[in-house]
Amino acid sequence: MPAKNMNDLVSLCKRRGFVFPGSEIYGGMQGLYDYGPNGVELMRNIREAWWRAMVYQRDDVDGLEAALISSRLLWKYSGHEAGFSDPLVVCKKCGNRMRQDNMKDPTKCEKCGASDLTAPRDYQLMMALSVGAVAEGEINAYLRPETATTTYTNFRNVLDSTSRKLPFGLVQIGKAFRNEIAPRNFIFRMREFEQAELQYFINPKETDDMKCWDEWKQTRLDWWVKVLGIPKENFRFKPHEKLAHYAKAAVDIEYKFPDGFEEVEGIHNRQDFDLGSHTKAQSEFKIEAKTLDNKDSTTKLNYVDAQTGESFIPFVIEAAMGVGRAMLAVLDHAYTEEDLGEGNSRIVLKMKPLLSPIKAAIIPLARNVPELLSLAEKIEKDLRELNLGRIVIENSGNIGKNYRRHDEIGTPVCITVDHQTLEDNMVTLRDRDTMKQTRVAVSEVPAKLKELIK
Amino acid sequence: MPAKNMNDLVSLCKRRGFVFPGSEIYGGMQGLYDYGPNGVELMRNIREAWWRAMVYQRDDVDGLEAALISSRLLWKYSGHEAGFSDPLVVCKKCGNRMRQDNMKDPTKCEKCGASDLTAPRDYQLMMALSVGAVAEGEINAYLRPETATTTYTNFRNVLDSTSRKLPFGLVQIGKAFRNEIAPRNFIFRMREFEQAELQYFINPKETDDMKCWDEWKQTRLDWWVKVLGIPKENFRFKPHEKLAHYAKAAVDIEYKFPDGFEEVEGIHNRQDFDLGSHTKAQSEFKIEAKTLDNKDSTTKLNYVDAQTGESFIPFVIEAAMGVGRAMLAVLDHAYTEEDLGEGNSRIVLKMKPLLSPIKAAIIPLARNVPELLSLAEKIEKDLRELNLGRIVIENSGNIGKNYRRHDEIGTPVCITVDHQTLEDNMVTLRDRDTMKQTRVAVSEVPAKLKELIK
Repeated sequence: MPAKNMNDLVSLCKRRGFVFPGSEIYGGMQGLYDYGPNGVELMRNIREAWWRAMVYQRDDVDGLEAALISSRLLWKYSGHEAGFSDPLVVCKKCGNRMRQDNMKDPTKCEKCGASDLTAPRDYQLMMALSVGAVAEGEINAYLRPETATTTYTNFRNVLDSTSRKLPFGLVQIGKAFRNEIAPRNFIFRMREFEQAELQYFINPKETDDMKCWDEWKQTRLDWWVKVLGIPKENFRFKPHEKLAHYAKAAVDIEYKFPDGFEEVEGIHNRQDFDLGSHTKAQSEFKIEAKTLDNKDSTTKLNYVDAQTGESFIPFVIEAAMGVGRAMLAVLDHAYTEEDLGEGNSRIVLKMKPLLSPIKAAIIPLARNVPELLSLAEKIEKDLRELNLGRIVIENSGNIGKNYRRHDEIGTPVCITVDHQTLEDNMVTLRDRDTMKQTRVAVSEVPAKLKELIK
Repeated sequence: MPAKNMNDLVSLCKRRGFVFPGSEIYGGMQGLYDYGPNGVELMRNIREAWWRAMVYQRDDVDGLEAALISSRLLWKYSGHEAGFSDPLVVCKKCGNRMRQDNMKDPTKCEKCGASDLTAPRDYQLMMALSVGAVAEGEINAYLRPETATTTYTNFRNVLDSTSRKLPFGLVQIGKAFRNEIAPRNFIFRMREFEQAELQYFINPKETDDMKCWDEWKQTRLDWWVKVLGIPKENFRFKPHEKLAHYAKAAVDIEYKFPDGFEEVEGIHNRQDFDLGSHTKAQSEFKIEAKTLDNKDSTTKLNYVDAQTGESFIPFVIEAAMGVGRAMLAVLDHAYTEEDLGEGNSRIVLKMKPLLSPIKAAIIPLARNVPELLSLAEKIEKDLRELNLGRIVIENSGNIGKNYRRHDEIGTPVCITVDHQTLEDNMVTLRDRDTMKQTRVAVSEVPAKLKELIK
């Protein structure tokens, strides 16, 4: 069965080196987390699987990586500077700060119960910066709250440096920052987090925007199911109840976490709002969305159709995934507590081997026996040539403890080298999910592992 | 010949989608850059080559990824809050701000020539943040100026969640931020940049620290030469003239850029300064380095030898590389302007195929001929199964233009599908470096490419 509650996951993540609280030795900072040795490998594998599906296996998508710091003007014209805020109320008695729209009873302090609260004020979610030798306290930049805008503002650069024709997409994987009043649910809502976002540019006269949006919904759900290996019944589409003013359609892909369904990805039809907001010479184009009047942009973000000569502002279909949320969903679905009988149990992460932080552990049955170790090293060398990710040798001699550790981090196979191996050149492969052990020739191990990881 | 000057590179980077100025459409922000479609692939390939060498092909190194934002206390005890600053002088006449120690004549404004300058003041290079609903203007966090400290502060977490024994290393690849007064040389000195850093922990009684430092010097130089494919004569070791107070030894690996040798990586013997600075209960350990008195750390960062019972603060050997600098060195070394005779010339990036942003371009000789395109797609599909990176089809019909584009982005091979192919199932492979064309059976193309990228 999967994790009963978030605490099981948090505990496993700390214990097995997936996720540590940020700045922990100095008391921690809410909403900030560090990824440990196994967490970083899982994150890398998820990113890689996403990039492969979105860039390498398609003909119509390129990658980008924009700076995390950008000019205040980007976030003025995106609408974030004026509108990206949450209502903050402060308890006058105890000083507790709360996000009003999340409070069960917005008249009482959640901490001390006092009812003397400040009036709500707009609390800016972007983190402000003074970049360069500007005057003391002058804000001229923000840490980006999303990757999307930093993709739109490079639209002209990409057109000018590639041979792209519409429709095409641009993706980014990278950090974003939101100064949440109340971060929550472990790595689910963080102040510093990672996004994997696609912006797909279309000519709405040639490509039906709603059909395109619908296709991306399906493409993205398929990815969660087929690539991450989480069965379909764990997901649902949740249409937005209230659309942002620029959105023609918006839906979330939600995953069933222990406490209920929560968003892991959003797919939006943003029309011409984004390129229209950031383009120079807005009046030259028929922009459908309501944008701020932009006098600061130096660049036209239009597209000219080479055949028809039509000049216009493309529409954008967006698919925006939280990478940390993908990791949390993978961990949650993989988390399995198994009763082994006779009072024994084990925790095992049954994740797709492609995602496993460690691909194989090679275990000499006894510790520090040179013949066993040198054979283990030979196997390790062969497996590393497959370039599948991390391969480790466990030279502690405690095979039970090693099985237990590798179950808990999701290593798909343990390979035991014993004294018999020295005679018959066979090793024992122990399967993570079934715990079944099979005897296999050393020479066959690479092919077996390759097959498993594929 | 390589790039004659940095301008050649900057121009190529913009023109071919490697690097764009950050926030460019709003006038840009000094020291911030975005990576375009080809830049992001080159960066990914460099990171991957580094991670493979440092983590996957070793037994003694794990990865980490810490948050970019961390508590002010980390940077207090690391010494950065008090000491990580440059001397800033301001011209009283024109307001120009300058880094005094870089000025040729520190008595005159570099911009207007006036000699009425302010006295130098310490200008903090870390970017400060107010995280969470703290009081207006309260600084409680910084964007990290390096990955290293965020590795040290996780030392206990790693010991507790893995079976690591000394010596072992921890690596991070990730962003860091320095509010340079005068960013310079394109992506060489940025305000937001990327590091790939190793911290290698040793027991100095068991592992000779100077020998270990020396070995890492060699290991890292070998990586630059063998993995990035830049010949040895382009590098030199440059010992630091003035050692930081905690450093026992420090050397830079310098690469010969168009304007001279400049640092691309530093290898340092930091002794017990780092874990000693951040540990709780400092007085319990014999810390050799001079550290701040730490009353805030909640965690002991010592190591206990399981055999001897000895408890001590490990030494650290560090190897710190700039990923953007590696990219710049790769581009610089690859950049080649070739005279083709008869007044023709080409620019070609002769980089290792492993690093190339696009691994192969498949070019149907004529545009929009269904039979040619469908054969090109078949070849593309086969090549994508090799999982080597980006494979593209160029369906513009302009073969000369395509060769030129792919020379300039370093694509190792172009595969041309022509009418003859439909009859004999052979394609033309055109080699980037020699421009030699060979006719090869379609079925042999994947093996040829695999061999080339290896």
